[in-house]
Amino acid sequence: MQEINSVNNELVKETVKLQLKKYRSEKNRFLIEGSKCVKEAYDAGIEINYAFVLKSKSDKYGYLKENLIPTNEAVLKKISTTESAPEIVAVGVKKTYTADDLKQAEKIVLLENIKDMGNLGTILRTSVAFNADAVILYGKECADLYNPKCVRSATGNLWKIPVVYIENFALLQKHFSGYDRVATLVNADKFLKNFTCKKPLIVMFGSEADGLSQELINFATQKVKIEMSDKVESLNLSVSCSIILYKLFL
Amino acid sequence: MQEINSVNNELVKETVKLQLKKYRSEKNRFLIEGSKCVKEAYDAGIEINYAFVLKSKSDKYGYLKENLIPTNEAVLKKISTTESAPEIVAVGVKKTYTADDLKQAEKIVLLENIKDMGNLGTILRTSVAFNADAVILYGKECADLYNPKCVRSATGNLWKIPVVYIENFALLQKHFSGYDRVATLVNADKFLKNFTCKKPLIVMFGSEADGLSQELINFATQKVKIEMSDKVESLNLSVSCSIILYKLFL
Repeated sequence: MQEINSVNNELVKETVKLQLKKYRSEKNRFLIEGSKCVKEAYDAGIEINYAFVLKSKSDKYGYLKENLIPTNEAVLKKISTTESAPEIVAVGVKKTYTADDLKQAEKIVLLENIKDMGNLGTILRTSVAFNADAVILYGKECADLYNPKCVRSATGNLWKIPVVYIENFALLQKHFSGYDRVATLVNADKFLKNFTCKKPLIVMFGSEADGLSQELINFATQKVKIEMSDKVESLNLSVSCSIILYKLFL
Repeated sequence: MQEINSVNNELVKETVKLQLKKYRSEKNRFLIEGSKCVKEAYDAGIEINYAFVLKSKSDKYGYLKENLIPTNEAVLKKISTTESAPEIVAVGVKKTYTADDLKQAEKIVLLENIKDMGNLGTILRTSVAFNADAVILYGKECADLYNPKCVRSATGNLWKIPVVYIENFALLQKHFSGYDRVATLVNADKFLKNFTCKKPLIVMFGSEADGLSQELINFATQKVKIEMSDKVESLNLSVSCSIILYKLFL
C-alpha cells in the first residue's frame, strides 16, 4: 500500500479511534501493537486489515504483503497506546463467538464482571494451560478483551481459546441448564480437596470487589471453596481461579 | 508532638528520603501510607517512630499518642508516594529476620531474584493462606519488601509471616541441608499430581524472566512441574506458586 507520513491523514485518524471501546465495537476492529503480538495474531488466523510499519523495518513483515503501509515514527506514536512507539501497529478483525459456538464445550470458565486487565490476561493463560474449552465473560461491566492493554498482556493466549460475552441471564439458563454449574465462594459448603463434579462443567467466579451475584449463586448446582488459613480473608482472583481449574479441569 | 507545616522542615526532608531503598537500608525504617495500612502495621506490632497526620484527622489516631505530628496536605503530598496524598504517613521500624529465626520452620517458600512487586505481594498473601512458616528472598536482585508499593499491595500480609533475605549460597547450604528441597521447573522429571515430599520442606521458585539458577537446581533434592497443555510455554509465577503451595503445604 501507499506510504503515509502525515498524522493528519484520514486513515491515521480512523485508526487512532480504535483506542476507544465504543469505536472498536462499532467497527469490529482492534489494534495489535508490536512485532511479537502481530505475528502471534497472524499465526492464529486473525484477519489483518492493514498495518502501519516503520519504513526501514517493512522488509521483516513480508507475510503481511500488500496490507503493509510504510510510515514514520510520528504516525506510529500517534496510533499506539504504549509509551514508546512500536515499529508496527496492525488493525485486526475481531473474532466473535456466541453461546451457540459452545455446544461441544465440556469445560467452561465463567468470569462475572471482571474488570482487572491483568487478572483477565492471567486467567486466559491459565485457562489455555489447563485445557478449558471456552471462557465466558458474564455481565455488563466486564473488561473489553480487545483493549490494547489486554491484547498485549494476554501474550498470545487471547487467540487460543474462544471467549464469549454473555450479558443476559436468560441466555445463560437456556444454554447451560444441562451443565454441572460450580460456584466458587469463600463461604461455600464444600471444600476443594475432595470435591467431585461431572462434565459438561462450568466453573463460575465473581469479581474481586463484589464476588458472585445472587443470581449466579442460585443458578449453581454446587458450591466450592479453597481451604485456607483464617489469617487471610481471601486469595487473589487469578490465584483462586488457577487452583480450582488445576484441580477440576486436569 | 509539635505541629510541622513546612515542606522544608528537617524531619520532613529526612522522611522523604525513605522513598529510596538505600536510605531505608541505612536507617532500618520505612514508610507506611494511608490509614488502613498504618492500623494493620500497628496491630501487627510494628514499632511506629512517628506519623505525619492531617491536623483535622488527628483525633482518629489516638492509638499513636505522642507519636503523632499534625501537619497539612502539602507536607503529606511531599512525603507520600501515591498520586493523591493520604491523611496519614507513618515511619515504622523494619522487622528483620535472619536464617537463624527459621530453625523451627517446616514449610518454607524460596523466591530467587523476584523483581515484580505485584507478584511478590500476591505470593506473600498465598503463603500466609496456605500456612507457610516463612518466605526466603534469595539473590542479590530481589525486590525490596519495604518498597512503599509493596507495603501497600501486600494488604497487611507483610506482617503475618517472617520474610528473610539471603544473598549467600553458603548460608543457604548451612541452614537447609536437612530439608527436602523442591525445585519447580518447566522441564522437571516429576509431575505435581502424584508428587510426594517430606517435611521440613523448602519449595524454590525462579524469577519469571530467568527461572531458577543452576546453583539452586543442583541444590534441589527433587524437581517438580505442573502438568499443562503444550499450547502455553509457562504459567504466571504467582499462579504456579499458588498451585504448588496448595498441593504441598495444605
